[in-house]
Amino acid sequence: MKLSPAMRSREEELILRIRQISAGSRLRRSRLKLSIGDDAAAFQVRHGHHLLVSTDALVEGIHFDLSYFRPEELGWKALAVNLSDIAAMGGRPLFFTTSIALPKHTDPRFVQRFYQGVNNLARKFGVELAGGDTCASPQGIFIDLTVLGEVKPSEMIGRSGARPGDLIYVSGELGGSAMGLELLKQSSHRKRSWSGLVERHLRPVPRCRLGRFLAQRGLATALIDLSDGLSTDLHHLCSASGVGAVIEAQEIPVARLSPSVAACLDGLPLDYAVNGGEDYELLFTVSERLRQKVPSSLGGVAIRRVGVITDKPLSCYFRQKGTTRRLLPRGFDHFADC
Amino acid sequence: MKLSPAMRSREEELILRIRQISAGSRLRRSRLKLSIGDDAAAFQVRHGHHLLVSTDALVEGIHFDLSYFRPEELGWKALAVNLSDIAAMGGRPLFFTTSIALPKHTDPRFVQRFYQGVNNLARKFGVELAGGDTCASPQGIFIDLTVLGEVKPSEMIGRSGARPGDLIYVSGELGGSAMGLELLKQSSHRKRSWSGLVERHLRPVPRCRLGRFLAQRGLATALIDLSDGLSTDLHHLCSASGVGAVIEAQEIPVARLSPSVAACLDGLPLDYAVNGGEDYELLFTVSERLRQKVPSSLGGVAIRRVGVITDKPLSCYFRQKGTTRRLLPRGFDHFADC
Repeated sequence: MKLSPAMRSREEELILRIRQISAGSRLRRSRLKLSIGDDAAAFQVRHGHHLLVSTDALVEGIHFDLSYFRPEELGWKALAVNLSDIAAMGGRPLFFTTSIALPKHTDPRFVQRFYQGVNNLARKFGVELAGGDTCASPQGIFIDLTVLGEVKPSEMIGRSGARPGDLIYVSGELGGSAMGLELLKQSSHRKRSWSGLVERHLRPVPRCRLGRFLAQRGLATALIDLSDGLSTDLHHLCSASGVGAVIEAQEIPVARLSPSVAACLDGLPLDYAVNGGEDYELLFTVSERLRQKVPSSLGGVAIRRVGVITDKPLSCYFRQKGTTRRLLPRGFDHFADC
Repeated sequence: MKLSPAMRSREEELILRIRQISAGSRLRRSRLKLSIGDDAAAFQVRHGHHLLVSTDALVEGIHFDLSYFRPEELGWKALAVNLSDIAAMGGRPLFFTTSIALPKHTDPRFVQRFYQGVNNLARKFGVELAGGDTCASPQGIFIDLTVLGEVKPSEMIGRSGARPGDLIYVSGELGGSAMGLELLKQSSHRKRSWSGLVERHLRPVPRCRLGRFLAQRGLATALIDLSDGLSTDLHHLCSASGVGAVIEAQEIPVARLSPSVAACLDGLPLDYAVNGGEDYELLFTVSERLRQKVPSSLGGVAIRRVGVITDKPLSCYFRQKGTTRRLLPRGFDHFADC
């Protein structure tokens, strides 16, 4: 127990600042009945809908490094990875809470800039900050966001519905985030030619629109977001559905990059696309009979068929230039050394 | 990006273990439609109810120290502090998510024992684990829980409804947690005579039943839980309600302790009761005309009238032995040095 009213006011000041920054994202007809400043936030849930909840943490030194992450980018990404989880259920995100532990020496502008980034993305997707917790950390920044969303039970898409013969699709381009991260680690000076890849790592755009599109049209049998990498997340989907898969290497939408940038990388672009994590694209399966209904793009984001579901549980294969090899889950792992 | 399937399986193993431990707390007729293992958890919300959400983090070296916290106690407390926030709205807790970052060398049994503690309390209050995130931390344990609950809009009790003339009540005994913490810091060997106080710090019992009682009977005009300490939380309540307060020192229910234990403490028991945090009792205000409806105890927990609300915004006073002095918010502050 420490007696420090001066420090208390620092916490109150923080809350006030967060409130001001997020005021801009309050919806015109908000369903938020009570937010920051009481013991809990309260809001209305639409009748006949399921509530969705998802939590994802970002830990300094594990998920990010301030040598290459600006506070606004970190705020954006912390919310983006959570919105992506709601998109991956076919749901509509509504509210979120933030929990942040900061070292005592943290510049107060860091918090302001962090919430500016959070708010930039929140406004884009019409979600509201409902509350949270800010406290001290002995060392390192710890960020945990929880996003709440809703979905009609009939529209909800889990991971377990893929059936043999279903076609496998991915949105956007893959590997950009992992390649961007490798470039950022090489030099904190961001080169112009890196920008597309680096942006994918720092400010991923969650595919909320595609998630809702698949849900409302009843198109996908299973859906997951690509946070751990295609090889790992495909494994998760197949494991939940009790099926296997074959992926065609030449169909994988590898993130575009110039030969000079490619030369800076340790691995081959295809390897990043298959095993690199944090692209936050969607991976989904569609019954053969509905293949005509899947558009080739949605809102400027390409949709690509990359393979097919098979009936061999947990057997994932990768077909490249006439040879077929086992596809093992080799994506990003937060328990490995970073 | 690191390639480590062996480590990946550690994460999967963790999730499996958490699932097994929490299976015991699944309700017979669960409203949880999808939980651990998909991108988000999904559940039904009762029609005509507001959803409540609250997030509280526990950081090693700030909120707890493993030299005196057993993993089961930490799990219990992490959930308790969050359930207390739902109680402080008059709500009924339903589900929770956990987010934990652990140093890589953490004994896997730590996680198992932590969730055992979480589960012990979850079963007691009929709440269910809905999902979460487990990741690595470069140093120190970070725990963040989010609890979801529900309340009828007409029964919800915020902090802002206290009016001049309302009577101020607290539940249980105060200061026990702060005194227990001081004793624990003195020696990791727990003496039998400490047990009541130490237990209050390590395994607080959230006052969910009292919160619901006040809500269902429309008794309280304002309600807050005592997490930061009476002086600080009273300040929060008065600030939100735009009122002041006078507290009578002799009415404060100071946690009982023997003279020999009191001699081990630096401060006076009354100081711990006024400024010590983490008691997780409830502080609430009741209109004068309803004072007869407030019981003297509920389910074995005493309820004590300690003061009255005044019309001077943010002016809190403390009356002791005929003298009146200003009561400043001097409770526990997580930004101060611990």
